[in-house]
Amino acid sequence: MQLREVGPRDGLQNEQQVLPVETRLELIRRLAGTGLRRIEAASFVNPERVPQMAGAEEVAAGLDSGDGILYTGLALNERGYDRLRETGLGEVSFALAATETFSQRNAGASVEDSVAAGERIVSRAPEDGIRSSVTISVAFGCPFEGPVDPDRVVALAERVVAAGPDELVLADTIGVATPTQARRLLERVGALGAPVGGHFHNTRNTGFANAYAALEAGVSLLDASVGGLGGCPFAPKATGNVATEDLVYLLEGEGVATGVDLDRLIEVPQWLEELLGRQLEGYVYRAGPFRTRA
Amino acid sequence: MQLREVGPRDGLQNEQQVLPVETRLELIRRLAGTGLRRIEAASFVNPERVPQMAGAEEVAAGLDSGDGILYTGLALNERGYDRLRETGLGEVSFALAATETFSQRNAGASVEDSVAAGERIVSRAPEDGIRSSVTISVAFGCPFEGPVDPDRVVALAERVVAAGPDELVLADTIGVATPTQARRLLERVGALGAPVGGHFHNTRNTGFANAYAALEAGVSLLDASVGGLGGCPFAPKATGNVATEDLVYLLEGEGVATGVDLDRLIEVPQWLEELLGRQLEGYVYRAGPFRTRA
Repeated sequence: MQLREVGPRDGLQNEQQVLPVETRLELIRRLAGTGLRRIEAASFVNPERVPQMAGAEEVAAGLDSGDGILYTGLALNERGYDRLRETGLGEVSFALAATETFSQRNAGASVEDSVAAGERIVSRAPEDGIRSSVTISVAFGCPFEGPVDPDRVVALAERVVAAGPDELVLADTIGVATPTQARRLLERVGALGAPVGGHFHNTRNTGFANAYAALEAGVSLLDASVGGLGGCPFAPKATGNVATEDLVYLLEGEGVATGVDLDRLIEVPQWLEELLGRQLEGYVYRAGPFRTRA
Repeated sequence: MQLREVGPRDGLQNEQQVLPVETRLELIRRLAGTGLRRIEAASFVNPERVPQMAGAEEVAAGLDSGDGILYTGLALNERGYDRLRETGLGEVSFALAATETFSQRNAGASVEDSVAAGERIVSRAPEDGIRSSVTISVAFGCPFEGPVDPDRVVALAERVVAAGPDELVLADTIGVATPTQARRLLERVGALGAPVGGHFHNTRNTGFANAYAALEAGVSLLDASVGGLGGCPFAPKATGNVATEDLVYLLEGEGVATGVDLDRLIEVPQWLEELLGRQLEGYVYRAGPFRTRA
């Protein structure tokens, strides 16, 4: 089981504040020092649409390529992938939506066109020496179309898996799933043969229960965002991704070795709190990991 | 599976603000209108030690005895029980601690004396027509003594169950448990024969995962606090009980009928937010229950 830190991308892209490249690199460096082995560092989408993610090439150029960490970049189409492959990043995270409306609004493309783009990217990646991870977003519910039929997600997953990605991730983008739902869909998709991951938002406080249910389903990856960074543009008061440090606390309690130094990790949201000028959603950095008191 | 709302007691007793009896009754009335069937309404402890809970008799006298709701009061000793039985409340929630230091600080009594008091209360309750629910607090970890040996909790539970309570509840008072730990201990205690419940705090974001694991263990009761009210005096920045409305969202998603009208329930933390002048920890009242948007 691996953790992928998505704070510098999925987290920061939902912040109102636009952080300069150097600050984003500082965040990544701090995360890299905690034992995390996979970090989503940049987004190769149109910077006019997501100004928080402008400068993806500069971020990629500033990474320490010798630190043994797998750095990931998001792409929503082949144009994004073409940019990413020039940077030397080790992994592309390609995202397609399970619903037509979300696909149009998020990627400006139909689901069909996104699947086709995903198939091409997944088939090109091995020649480029790039790992390919494909995320199906709004896999449980869509802010525009409501609950999503699991059969639709499985049908999309079948096409993605047929293209041969290194991994398929189901994302509960707006945080509506409940644990049994998450476990069942991950089990169905896992049966298709590719390694499967879960990406949960804690918008309705089910994110950690879903992550636990995903463990029961045997996922090989969980995404998380330091401090719980990352809201949802469709629900301004809603919270973000499951917080990495809280997930590490849960995983270690479950006997899943994460390789992360929790004491060092909780220093990152403490630093971010000052940087962003507000309390973050993560709890462990506030309550502290559990230790005996005198 | 039943829900017990503990906000008016376990929630409010950890608020800095002391709410007058009439406001606490207003909270209870609002909760009673949502479909909740069990509500912890008052605490029969020394009001000098917990001023937030002063006026337990007045609270009890103000309840609508004809509304079909089982109202509970907390007692930490026989003196508290004697006060409670004069009020006509339908249930005593007797709490004892799993560790000596917590027991001394919280109840001013040894674990041994607390168990003895619990045995006497449980044996007296039937003659008084009062339901008895016994909670073992700090069942997973203690802020003073650290992790708690599950064998110690099982040994205490055996003595409590032998006295014949209507229910035994394990409380993760400081929110340190992780799901498998919660499930295993609840299963062991459940095997003793009494109906078993779980009381989880979300201090480290494991509360809802633990509640889900408790469902897997077959609990017959889960405690929750509206809005997630209730911090922890030992960790000032830490959060409280699992939020009732968020737990209802999760339970309904799991197919567990709660009888609660979620739309009405989320009006209560909205009202509390204004009353207390701060955002509460619950998420569903902010994000909204999940519905299709046009």
